[in-house]
Amino acid sequence: MAEEPFLDDAEALPRLARITIIGVGMIGGSFALSLKGKGVVDEVVGYGRSRERLETAKNLGVIDRFSCDLTEAVTGADLIFLAAPIDASKRLLKELVSLVGPEVIITDAGSVKQEIISAARESLEEGLAMFIPGHPIAGKEKTGVTAADGALFVDHRVVLTPVEETNRYATQRVRRLWEIAGADVVEMDAMEHDRLLAMTSHLPHAVAFALVALLGEQQNAEEFFPLAAGGFYDLTRVASSDPVMWRDIFLNNKEPVLAGIDGYITVLERIRELIRLGNGTELEAIFEHARETRARIRTGRVV
Amino acid sequence: MAEEPFLDDAEALPRLARITIIGVGMIGGSFALSLKGKGVVDEVVGYGRSRERLETAKNLGVIDRFSCDLTEAVTGADLIFLAAPIDASKRLLKELVSLVGPEVIITDAGSVKQEIISAARESLEEGLAMFIPGHPIAGKEKTGVTAADGALFVDHRVVLTPVEETNRYATQRVRRLWEIAGADVVEMDAMEHDRLLAMTSHLPHAVAFALVALLGEQQNAEEFFPLAAGGFYDLTRVASSDPVMWRDIFLNNKEPVLAGIDGYITVLERIRELIRLGNGTELEAIFEHARETRARIRTGRVV
Repeated sequence: MAEEPFLDDAEALPRLARITIIGVGMIGGSFALSLKGKGVVDEVVGYGRSRERLETAKNLGVIDRFSCDLTEAVTGADLIFLAAPIDASKRLLKELVSLVGPEVIITDAGSVKQEIISAARESLEEGLAMFIPGHPIAGKEKTGVTAADGALFVDHRVVLTPVEETNRYATQRVRRLWEIAGADVVEMDAMEHDRLLAMTSHLPHAVAFALVALLGEQQNAEEFFPLAAGGFYDLTRVASSDPVMWRDIFLNNKEPVLAGIDGYITVLERIRELIRLGNGTELEAIFEHARETRARIRTGRVV
Repeated sequence: MAEEPFLDDAEALPRLARITIIGVGMIGGSFALSLKGKGVVDEVVGYGRSRERLETAKNLGVIDRFSCDLTEAVTGADLIFLAAPIDASKRLLKELVSLVGPEVIITDAGSVKQEIISAARESLEEGLAMFIPGHPIAGKEKTGVTAADGALFVDHRVVLTPVEETNRYATQRVRRLWEIAGADVVEMDAMEHDRLLAMTSHLPHAVAFALVALLGEQQNAEEFFPLAAGGFYDLTRVASSDPVMWRDIFLNNKEPVLAGIDGYITVLERIRELIRLGNGTELEAIFEHARETRARIRTGRVV
């Protein structure tokens, strides 16, 4: 276990000799670019299953070298950044326990926090202290390392959900790295995080997936498409998100997501009933309130 | 009734001495700017209920003059463009019959076509021939004349839904005006239009309004907002649309909208059940299909 050093020097830039990015996609790649751009990391190693994608990441300058062998990829790393879909991250945590020493910080970027914490608790044993659960709220529907962007996290919120056992020094270090990447970091209870994100992110994705799925099911879908307005396109942008990532998010945050969908269907059925009854006054009031509500939403950006 | 002149000269620019825009908001204002920019109209007169908004439209150069008196506003107009919410347009059609001669073209921009055609049939009598039902598919969530844009319709689809009685010459003339504004014009049966738009536009708006309404209802709504990701913001953009306009759209296209909401809830409940059962394979397949479907959607833009 790492000693807890003196923490007052929060302004000092942390230096990292080597970090390993597990899952060099948009988020993992953007994290690497953010830190490389600030000169706080000497070497970035990439790990993934696809040699071709890792080659691309290397050619783009996102990583300095890569390996498809986990042991080789994490050897000598000061920090490991897990940016794979949740179920893959859970499996990788099990493998990491025998590969890295207790001084290595592991952090992740998953959209659900309770399940990854449970996996860390089971897999890492003593190492749980050095696992810092994190979630940068800065998605795009784009996927893959070609969408990586060193400015992706600037003025975006990053949530850390440390548990009682978490090493404070390690949390502080991860916080500083995200701040260097330009993010606004908040700490929050993992259960609270999962409940809030079910409403602000997971439910909206389910809503958009369902809408596009419905259109895709129409026998004469091609007829519809030329008449889809820009609003439809914006509304369903998130339905282009990575299917595996979202499968994992829903299945790892079941109860809050199911509750969100139920609450949502209730509201939609209320609107349906008002339309059926021709109650224009109530409909208008709901739409007016929705417009006001949306104007208050700040969307993860902090400026 | 206007004679049907020789139609072969489709390339010739139509000239209009005066058009009247009823409802000088984003759509009405953009139509005016599009035609003024091409120099095919000598004078644009605005009509509305708010003198202040009409003053703004005049100051922005969208209209040349205005009146809050309908008779004064439409006197001498060659063409009247109805761009008010649907119920207001239906009422205005009733008033117009006694104010304009049978040679004046009336066209509209409403998002539902069967109801406005019924109103025209009841209100205009013989004048039905000169009413050209239209719908430019080029919305923004912005409202008001300050959002007017002379390039709004460029490469966007405009649907015309003439009926059997509609004067072909008048339809052709309105088509040419939209083409001059840069739009791609298609003709379609009104019932077909309403059925398709219920799915591609009206249902998506209901879906977005319900999502924002649900969030607004949460007791601790303020907690949620800083965690709303960019996807949420895009998804709910349309929930900022004009409440009166949307109240009218839903109530004037009831049956197709209700059928759309029912179909949508069925799909969302299917996704809910797959999450509950932990059926990752099926979920992933639905999301993969949604991603493919969305990639095929062309969103009203024709390029």
